[in-house]
Amino acid sequence: MHIIDNLQYANWSEKIFRQMREGGVDAVHVTIAYHEIFREMVANIEKWNRWFEAFPQLICHGRSGNDVRRAKKDGRTAIIFGFQNPSPIEDDIGLVEICHMLGVRFMQLTYNNQSLLATGCYEAEDSGITRMGRAVIKEMNRVGLVIDMSHSAERSTLEAISLAERPIAITHANPNFWQPAKRNKSDTVLRALGESGGMLGFSLYPHHLKDKSNCSLDSFCEMIARTADLMGVSQIGLGSDLCQDQPDSVVEWMRVGRWSKTIDYGEGSATEAGFPDMPDWFQDNRHFGNIASGLRTVGFSNDETSAIMGENWLRFYDENFTAA
Amino acid sequence: MHIIDNLQYANWSEKIFRQMREGGVDAVHVTIAYHEIFREMVANIEKWNRWFEAFPQLICHGRSGNDVRRAKKDGRTAIIFGFQNPSPIEDDIGLVEICHMLGVRFMQLTYNNQSLLATGCYEAEDSGITRMGRAVIKEMNRVGLVIDMSHSAERSTLEAISLAERPIAITHANPNFWQPAKRNKSDTVLRALGESGGMLGFSLYPHHLKDKSNCSLDSFCEMIARTADLMGVSQIGLGSDLCQDQPDSVVEWMRVGRWSKTIDYGEGSATEAGFPDMPDWFQDNRHFGNIASGLRTVGFSNDETSAIMGENWLRFYDENFTAA
Repeated sequence: MHIIDNLQYANWSEKIFRQMREGGVDAVHVTIAYHEIFREMVANIEKWNRWFEAFPQLICHGRSGNDVRRAKKDGRTAIIFGFQNPSPIEDDIGLVEICHMLGVRFMQLTYNNQSLLATGCYEAEDSGITRMGRAVIKEMNRVGLVIDMSHSAERSTLEAISLAERPIAITHANPNFWQPAKRNKSDTVLRALGESGGMLGFSLYPHHLKDKSNCSLDSFCEMIARTADLMGVSQIGLGSDLCQDQPDSVVEWMRVGRWSKTIDYGEGSATEAGFPDMPDWFQDNRHFGNIASGLRTVGFSNDETSAIMGENWLRFYDENFTAA
Repeated sequence: MHIIDNLQYANWSEKIFRQMREGGVDAVHVTIAYHEIFREMVANIEKWNRWFEAFPQLICHGRSGNDVRRAKKDGRTAIIFGFQNPSPIEDDIGLVEICHMLGVRFMQLTYNNQSLLATGCYEAEDSGITRMGRAVIKEMNRVGLVIDMSHSAERSTLEAISLAERPIAITHANPNFWQPAKRNKSDTVLRALGESGGMLGFSLYPHHLKDKSNCSLDSFCEMIARTADLMGVSQIGLGSDLCQDQPDSVVEWMRVGRWSKTIDYGEGSATEAGFPDMPDWFQDNRHFGNIASGLRTVGFSNDETSAIMGENWLRFYDENFTAA
């Protein structure tokens, strides 16, 4: 069984890389840009290159499903790059392929707000995919950069699914039926996602969980079972949204970037402005085993559990990370 | 026999790509930066990506010796990226690996002037490799980005050869003994280059040729024979410096970039400011056959001719384009 977590944004350190190995995590999709322009995002890849050089026995850069298989064989964790916002491509469609050449494999078309490409889930009006958005979707499909609509609004998400010629992903979100939240997804979106061959990564970020930090493992796994009924057990995986060891200043950067001079609390509030506590059964990369056990407890077979824990993402990587 | 031209900077067009195919050229190392900063160089790669997309039957991006072999098999020309100046890495050593990730395989440490790394061949004083230069040489060796000293001064070149742990290249220059010119190289440099496993690419740029535009094929090939005696027949190849179809404004950009407000004529002069005429036996990519014939005429065996025409560069690519 491969274990793949298809979204993390931790305050990376040797400690965390060692926890990935302790947890047997074979691949992690890491966010390397929220609001960065191209050159700033490149500086973030430079940081990763230094970590790859410093900890070659723990981590390596992952660009393909086979890189993940090789990493597992070598006892390392493959790190897959992604953006939560299209800011690194600026207004230049040529940067889509450049980013793919640098190993980027996921890009959200929006992060909460309206972008040049689509509408984010916190906007009052969702005007759908823009002119540039249509061109960029085509280009992302051409080169093998996966469209991620985790932070996008409903109409934009449905349009992206239908305009794209290859499956898209919602790397980190949960169903609205379980925990109503602007970031969680409607049955309509989840059904369209599953039917188009797309993937949903279940989030463990407390604001996306029923009962938030007090969410039970059983409730989380029951929700997965109901989502499997809705979209198919082959179209779901994990995208924990683990933001381990981050200071609260980072959640401010994520929410506000440079787009506003006043604070926006996003999913939080003035009284709960920082990162919420993770559930006790998923504190860090060492705890994926709890989820696998929980999935078996709610009735998933061993094969289905493996599919959800990583094999589905691995198949998706094989099919969607290279040129069409 | 593979035909490889290890330096061109043409005004690229479908016409030229077709001439590469007519001439049976399997790989060309193309200059993608003279004075560009990182972001400007990236825009130049974007242009190449569009050409790769527009002319997939003629050209493809080459990152390795095996890419060149595949290109030959497919009837295409592999395009290998290089810089004539370290300006695209700005003052950021992390950009060395980023550029390698983007497929860049050669970088000159200087272009005529003093750079952050070393001294160019037009400076009055040659202070050798700088502090940053030493660090960058080590990093280039680590990732597999080849050091090119074509436009560097003598002391800097000798220091680069001796500091580098992997062979360097002088991609486009000729011996001083044949045509004394600031851009041509002393016996001392050529001997050190050959002994260290480095490669010299013979230039066909008229300012580097005896009798310039009137240079005879026989004289050019005799010079190659004398250079083979000096450095070894396994350490030489071609680097034509073909600047086909370029307007004279481009030679100004090459010479002056943005570093001076007054014109510097480089190897030219006020009366010969533009691009000189190429010799009649080497007008463009269709004429490599003339050089191969000329080499046989001056006494090279078929195997030696193949080595000079491309096999030596191919071996050098195999050994120097990947991480140490």
